[in-house]
Amino acid sequence: MTAELPVVRLTPKANVRAIRRGFPWIYANEMVLDRRTKALAPGTVAVLEDSARMPVGLVGVTPASKIAARMLDRDVKTGIDRDWLTARLVRALALRERLYPTPYYRLVHAEADGLPGVIIDRFGDTAVIQPNAAWAEMLLTPLAEALAEVTGVRNILKNAGSRGRQLEGLDDTNAVLLGQAPDAPLPVEMNGATYMADLTGGQKTGLFYDQRPNHAFAARLAGGQAVLDVFSHVGGFALAALAGGAASALAVDGSAPALALAEEGAQRMGAGARFSTRQGDAFDMLTDLGDEGARFGLVICDPPAFAPSKPALDAGLRAYERVARLSAPLVEEGGYLVLCSCSHAADLSSFTGACLRGIGRAGRRAQLLHIGFAGPDHPLLPQLAESGYLKALVFRL
Amino acid sequence: MTAELPVVRLTPKANVRAIRRGFPWIYANEMVLDRRTKALAPGTVAVLEDSARMPVGLVGVTPASKIAARMLDRDVKTGIDRDWLTARLVRALALRERLYPTPYYRLVHAEADGLPGVIIDRFGDTAVIQPNAAWAEMLLTPLAEALAEVTGVRNILKNAGSRGRQLEGLDDTNAVLLGQAPDAPLPVEMNGATYMADLTGGQKTGLFYDQRPNHAFAARLAGGQAVLDVFSHVGGFALAALAGGAASALAVDGSAPALALAEEGAQRMGAGARFSTRQGDAFDMLTDLGDEGARFGLVICDPPAFAPSKPALDAGLRAYERVARLSAPLVEEGGYLVLCSCSHAADLSSFTGACLRGIGRAGRRAQLLHIGFAGPDHPLLPQLAESGYLKALVFRL
Repeated sequence: MTAELPVVRLTPKANVRAIRRGFPWIYANEMVLDRRTKALAPGTVAVLEDSARMPVGLVGVTPASKIAARMLDRDVKTGIDRDWLTARLVRALALRERLYPTPYYRLVHAEADGLPGVIIDRFGDTAVIQPNAAWAEMLLTPLAEALAEVTGVRNILKNAGSRGRQLEGLDDTNAVLLGQAPDAPLPVEMNGATYMADLTGGQKTGLFYDQRPNHAFAARLAGGQAVLDVFSHVGGFALAALAGGAASALAVDGSAPALALAEEGAQRMGAGARFSTRQGDAFDMLTDLGDEGARFGLVICDPPAFAPSKPALDAGLRAYERVARLSAPLVEEGGYLVLCSCSHAADLSSFTGACLRGIGRAGRRAQLLHIGFAGPDHPLLPQLAESGYLKALVFRL
Repeated sequence: MTAELPVVRLTPKANVRAIRRGFPWIYANEMVLDRRTKALAPGTVAVLEDSARMPVGLVGVTPASKIAARMLDRDVKTGIDRDWLTARLVRALALRERLYPTPYYRLVHAEADGLPGVIIDRFGDTAVIQPNAAWAEMLLTPLAEALAEVTGVRNILKNAGSRGRQLEGLDDTNAVLLGQAPDAPLPVEMNGATYMADLTGGQKTGLFYDQRPNHAFAARLAGGQAVLDVFSHVGGFALAALAGGAASALAVDGSAPALALAEEGAQRMGAGARFSTRQGDAFDMLTDLGDEGARFGLVICDPPAFAPSKPALDAGLRAYERVARLSAPLVEEGGYLVLCSCSHAADLSSFTGACLRGIGRAGRRAQLLHIGFAGPDHPLLPQLAESGYLKALVFRL
């Protein structure tokens, strides 16, 4: 097969050592972008050679992207075909089946699962693919076929809403690749709670699996407590807290549809009487609750990425500090505060620092009980530090 | 009470801002060590003032120690007496009772629980105190009384074996403070496994609670697997893996008594037939197993602190790299490798780097599934970075 594939080449300046050691991206300035390479259709599979013409691996090329190529396989003799996709999916599935008793998880977490740019979330017999790299868009049919074969799912949806697709020059048209789209939100059981996943109308793929272990940890602190869950989305922490025996849970979010799904989940759990919501700006709500003198045994703030990129870092850290400063006064003496960040740019140390400044400015002191990351169905490629985005800090005040 | 207490004073160069913000230690070079202060008995409770004679808090003074004073309370009007000790213990107990269904945990984790230098581990109705600071040695009787009152334990042992006591100028004589020492190892249930804790003859307090959540995570990967647990001590990971359904578990340790306790635990679990041990140097054993071509679905290496201090960091990181290099070849393709460090000096990033170098030199590639720390009964004082010593990395190879 190799003989038929186009060849692309690294420049002498490329960090070929890192790439050979496992770094999966070839930046545009590391690749010879001659007329022939620029003419390749986005997503073309090619042989990558170093500047001395030694083969490095098979890559998916997107000539116009800042990430000009993504490593698919170091074995240039293999074929990137349905069997290859099947093998990757079998390996990814084996991990998830070991970790989870029911088929609700992130099945493929992109580079770390050997399928660069590809996210697949599974909700029972329905899967949602995000093909966020051009090579995967090109191989979408065999990918969907392999997915159905390996997992037995009956419905496969394509979610084209990610920012990553824009960077790859891909469209944002969702599609049904197999079976049909669910006509109503699906119930998903996690940590004893019932979440409603809206796979067609919701944010991203309708439900975030990444916080599952952090929900579970917070639920251990929830028994008998009044719980406040700010930036609640479809009730992530609030419903887990109810399952953990919370006396009450108040979910705050800017999105009325998300809160309606949270409400439906609470009803299905038979916990509707312990659950309430407030819709509106989270900072305003935190301020209002402070003015009201409200106090909770457990407060969780899981905001959107305030520092999605390095230029936004300073402003992002100030926003995290503000969340901590406004939420700490709402925590009872001896109570618990969970502060989360899903910002790539804010590393653990700077995020922790921002939280502690905010807690300190609220006149409180803290023990740090627990540091949590995304669950193990979101593995990391160690060479790609950016994959470690999610941080959850559990404080006792 | 304040009027009767001696006064000690910070030098103008002391980092009074950090101390006021919560840093709990006053180093010898930050304190005026005049003849009067030097003459204080080790463990004297004193009022700490800044160089402008403004009160900072109540401290326990050890004039000859590098840590010349430890902050006990910022309120100089309080009394450091049995009631004060009781209040600290009540607060510490409330957290553990929320976290654990049975009374087996670290009850007090020193500075983070507001009792500087004091470690208390609880094993049902027996508790082990490590008074590793002179102030606690001086108040040991009211501390033991408060402990019995708050928890209802019937036996209290004093373990004086820590290195910290030497730095404080304290002796190494163990004692029974209440009730009696158990005449046999105690069974302790964690994660469905049974561990035998030897509270009088064992290392530290006979059993380490800190790895509990990491044991639990590894157990999720153990079902049906052949498991190797190197530096096993009393069977920490091996017995949890057996409880998680491992087909077999081999525990390797240098200590025959520790392995005998592990064996007894496996027998009590009814898992003796699936359990085996090898006693000897772990590096030799890893090499031997490699030479034998042994393969396991799950390998865990939880060595002692190779980098206990900054000067030992480079050698320590090389030792961690060697552990990774020798253990990775023993992991089946698609299997799991858990690598731990309990070194203060090796931070998460350098420890991860050492592990990845070792795995790479063994010719393997890794996904990083999980990063675990010490359990939440080992809280951190955020101002004291040193408290975060334990790291567990879970890789899939």
